[in-house]
Amino acid sequence: MSSQALKILVIGGSAAGPKAAAKARRMDEHASITLIQKEADLSMASCGFPYYVGGVFDDRNMLICTPAGIVRDPNFFDKAKRIEALVETEALSIDREAKTVTCLHLPSGETQVLPYDRLVIATGASPLYPQVPGSDLDGIRTLHSLGDADALRAVRDQGKVTKAVVVGGGLIGFEVCEALHLAGIQTTVIEKTGQILPFLDPDLAKLVENHVRSKEADIITNNGVAAFLGEDGKLNGVKLDNGTELPCELAVIAVGVRPNVGLAKAAGLEIGDKGGIAVDDFMRTSDPDIYAAGDCVECRSLINNETVRAPYGDIANLQGRVIGQNLIEPESASFPGITHTGICKIFDFTVGFTGLSEAAAREAGFDIETATVSGLDIPGYMNGQLLVSKMVADRKSGRVIGFQCIGPGDASKRVATVAMAIRGKLTVEDLNNADLPYAPPYSLALDHVIVSAHVLDNKLSGRMQGISVSEVKQRVDSGADCFILDTRSPQEFEEMRLGIGETLIPLGALRGRLDELPADKDKEIILYCKISLRGYEAAAALQAYGWTQVKVMEGGIMAWPYPREK
Amino acid sequence: MSSQALKILVIGGSAAGPKAAAKARRMDEHASITLIQKEADLSMASCGFPYYVGGVFDDRNMLICTPAGIVRDPNFFDKAKRIEALVETEALSIDREAKTVTCLHLPSGETQVLPYDRLVIATGASPLYPQVPGSDLDGIRTLHSLGDADALRAVRDQGKVTKAVVVGGGLIGFEVCEALHLAGIQTTVIEKTGQILPFLDPDLAKLVENHVRSKEADIITNNGVAAFLGEDGKLNGVKLDNGTELPCELAVIAVGVRPNVGLAKAAGLEIGDKGGIAVDDFMRTSDPDIYAAGDCVECRSLINNETVRAPYGDIANLQGRVIGQNLIEPESASFPGITHTGICKIFDFTVGFTGLSEAAAREAGFDIETATVSGLDIPGYMNGQLLVSKMVADRKSGRVIGFQCIGPGDASKRVATVAMAIRGKLTVEDLNNADLPYAPPYSLALDHVIVSAHVLDNKLSGRMQGISVSEVKQRVDSGADCFILDTRSPQEFEEMRLGIGETLIPLGALRGRLDELPADKDKEIILYCKISLRGYEAAAALQAYGWTQVKVMEGGIMAWPYPREK
Repeated sequence: MSSQALKILVIGGSAAGPKAAAKARRMDEHASITLIQKEADLSMASCGFPYYVGGVFDDRNMLICTPAGIVRDPNFFDKAKRIEALVETEALSIDREAKTVTCLHLPSGETQVLPYDRLVIATGASPLYPQVPGSDLDGIRTLHSLGDADALRAVRDQGKVTKAVVVGGGLIGFEVCEALHLAGIQTTVIEKTGQILPFLDPDLAKLVENHVRSKEADIITNNGVAAFLGEDGKLNGVKLDNGTELPCELAVIAVGVRPNVGLAKAAGLEIGDKGGIAVDDFMRTSDPDIYAAGDCVECRSLINNETVRAPYGDIANLQGRVIGQNLIEPESASFPGITHTGICKIFDFTVGFTGLSEAAAREAGFDIETATVSGLDIPGYMNGQLLVSKMVADRKSGRVIGFQCIGPGDASKRVATVAMAIRGKLTVEDLNNADLPYAPPYSLALDHVIVSAHVLDNKLSGRMQGISVSEVKQRVDSGADCFILDTRSPQEFEEMRLGIGETLIPLGALRGRLDELPADKDKEIILYCKISLRGYEAAAALQAYGWTQVKVMEGGIMAWPYPREK
Repeated sequence: MSSQALKILVIGGSAAGPKAAAKARRMDEHASITLIQKEADLSMASCGFPYYVGGVFDDRNMLICTPAGIVRDPNFFDKAKRIEALVETEALSIDREAKTVTCLHLPSGETQVLPYDRLVIATGASPLYPQVPGSDLDGIRTLHSLGDADALRAVRDQGKVTKAVVVGGGLIGFEVCEALHLAGIQTTVIEKTGQILPFLDPDLAKLVENHVRSKEADIITNNGVAAFLGEDGKLNGVKLDNGTELPCELAVIAVGVRPNVGLAKAAGLEIGDKGGIAVDDFMRTSDPDIYAAGDCVECRSLINNETVRAPYGDIANLQGRVIGQNLIEPESASFPGITHTGICKIFDFTVGFTGLSEAAAREAGFDIETATVSGLDIPGYMNGQLLVSKMVADRKSGRVIGFQCIGPGDASKRVATVAMAIRGKLTVEDLNNADLPYAPPYSLALDHVIVSAHVLDNKLSGRMQGISVSEVKQRVDSGADCFILDTRSPQEFEEMRLGIGETLIPLGALRGRLDELPADKDKEIILYCKISLRGYEAAAALQAYGWTQVKVMEGGIMAWPYPREK
């Protein structure tokens, strides 16, 4: 190694750190690259922990190996990447003046001062804990480290735990819920707010809630943890804010993470208003020789330019790559921001989202229109499965700024497709004519994404007036004076119906039975069918015949999350 | 109906026609809408025919019913959509002066003259036949009409046919091949050109070919049909251009379609240079009161603005919707063009594409760079499956202009994602940082699409020099003087290897064994591993140590379509 070799120091060995180090190595064979990792393991596939815990696979090595089966240990980093990896080593402080980092080797207690030309901070995040009595009891965990995964997998393998509580109704909470359920443990998810999965709008979240309940896992909303209960230092229950006590031998906390910014802060680096390390588009901190990436930083939303935190494994990898390149060729790569994309498997449902929810878009000040659409992912004759989605567009520009999609159907493809549309700042009109891959094993002739755009277009242009299932429920519950019309066939009505005071007039008979509709042409008429396509056709006709308050219940019966008559 | 009601006449009842009619109805309840259909059936799900033939589903009704199970017959169109559908009725001529269409009711032989204010031509396309002796023998079919589907399904149900030949190695040819194979029929696909699936580049097409052969269906390329052979009017074989005779009781022709433009041509409407009816962005023909859509028209490529034909069901539906809207509100909707997207299931492989192949892009005059990438769709621990893809970018602008993706993995999602990127005119740099939905059941931390962009970026910036598997094969076959390096582990090498004169030096040992590499630093060195990720890392190192001709075999062993040693 030449004595002029660039000295790169990377703090953090999980996702962003190793990625930055590896990319830097590919850019410069001669740089000196050292990776400091507090834990014993490196490059763990932490997003895979729930599937190991749930028994989807049994070989723990798969979490820490390359695809070729080689453990990513310091020897691997040395041999394959010529990166010195110091594990079980904690970075204690950064001296920006001297350009050094002081480290503590945890097993030996020895400290070491490492010089750098360029430094990368990828210190990640730490799980939050509710600050309540009993939180030191044995039997309370998170699923954050490989050690956590080992412990929860042991719970499965030992088969002694019968009841568990998951605290927090977000992505991780439900991944853990499913994993514990697969281990045969009766699991209840506790959510402090009124709604699970905060990136969804309430109507869709409620459908997911119903699905989880159908799997005999329980959910309690509007209730935080008041205390962990126990005996002899061991957890035996959780007490909720409302006083309810849930017996359980295991509690898993999944209430979010806090970026690890202590080191950066102590070094005087700028911390952003969202609590993460502030970085520019080159992933550079306020010190031009120090970069930061992953769960410890803030980045920019490409939807509205606000700073946000995005503690996701894919984002960490993307940012790490940008840093790796900039370490060697400064300002040659940039990370422009995120589009708020995420996904989660919850039992037989896929739950995905990109961009902003209706609630988030309104909160951000957008003037929006939305469309909720139900439909199959592929044709019925190919055994198509249901998708329910909501697309959000900015009314002025027509730009699509959000999409949520859930259900047993292939939501993953639709979310990826719209994520790319959002990245490209495409409008509803662009999506109206999207040329997507069509064949019956993969899509309807008009894919769910395109149909969603069509419905949204109809609403934006005033051709269709929609009403959400929750608004309809409110009307019904408050005894509002409206006429509710189910436009399906008598057979479908016989097999399943809402029972909310609706009148059945099949679409095919409607034009001959207009006299059964309200004489008052200004009375509110709410129409639906199974997915509200026939409902929409009927609505268009009624408007033409003079009714003025004709509304389509968006998504139809398939989007109705409340109890129904049959 | 008011006497001023707009009179809309639609010729063609398959996809674009009914879509235009139905959309027009939703736009205007009072228009008079008549649909003329030569066949007896309406709105048949013709893309579903192969799956009915192959026994994926057995209920024929599903091909002609709404999702709610109602047959889309004239009664349905009348009742549900107030559209008059005249089936078994052929449009004979258009009088543009008088604004009438003369029709023949086929069963009765009666003609009728129908007036229109606005006319839609959706006459579709007809299958091409090879003009060779014996083409009138019994046992030769296409899979174009519902009657064809019935006949081929009967072949399955009767179980008498043992050998079949499919003429034409495109999408439909392979869908038919799989369907017949599922019916227990030994099937051979004949392709006149040197390559199946012309929208793929040869290296990827070859991988698909291998897969088809592994299923014990056969493929013969570089051979057209010279004659159909038979006895007593019945097919008993196919003679190829090279004289080979293939015994078979069934031949299915799938060599493409010809747009049905006779009616339009006779009426003096402009026909484009690709042989389809010429239309503008509003789907209007050269007569402003006549629209046309579907397989009978030409449209525009959004990649290079050339006119193209795109005889696909989804495009017909998109165009039909645009017409339906413009019929009522002229010039209110437009169809800007296509991005050449398509997909097909071929046994366990998905074969998808969007934009231009390398060959098509070069032919269109683009200065391009490409990247072939192999990888899993989701993590190995989630039982990820292989994808092999090629991404094509315009060198000057960096715009992604093509993507092909094949394999047992979920190629459909990746093609849809890139199709949307192409629609948005996104660059490789945009894709480098795409925020796609990541969770282990759905994706790698860096999705295949993103990794493809990264590799392409490395090539565009000169950080990586690639060489295709076919170029490597040429080198090997011609005895070229190059050094071939496999960078995998000894165990992997033992289990499977190419056997093309390669030297094994595992990546982890490479830096200590540089003396085993050619002393001539300008000698060509070709590196690979299973997917050529380690190959790339090794290449970056070797370049740094002074070798100048270091090339990575793109896609690695997984993209190698030729025989290997083991």
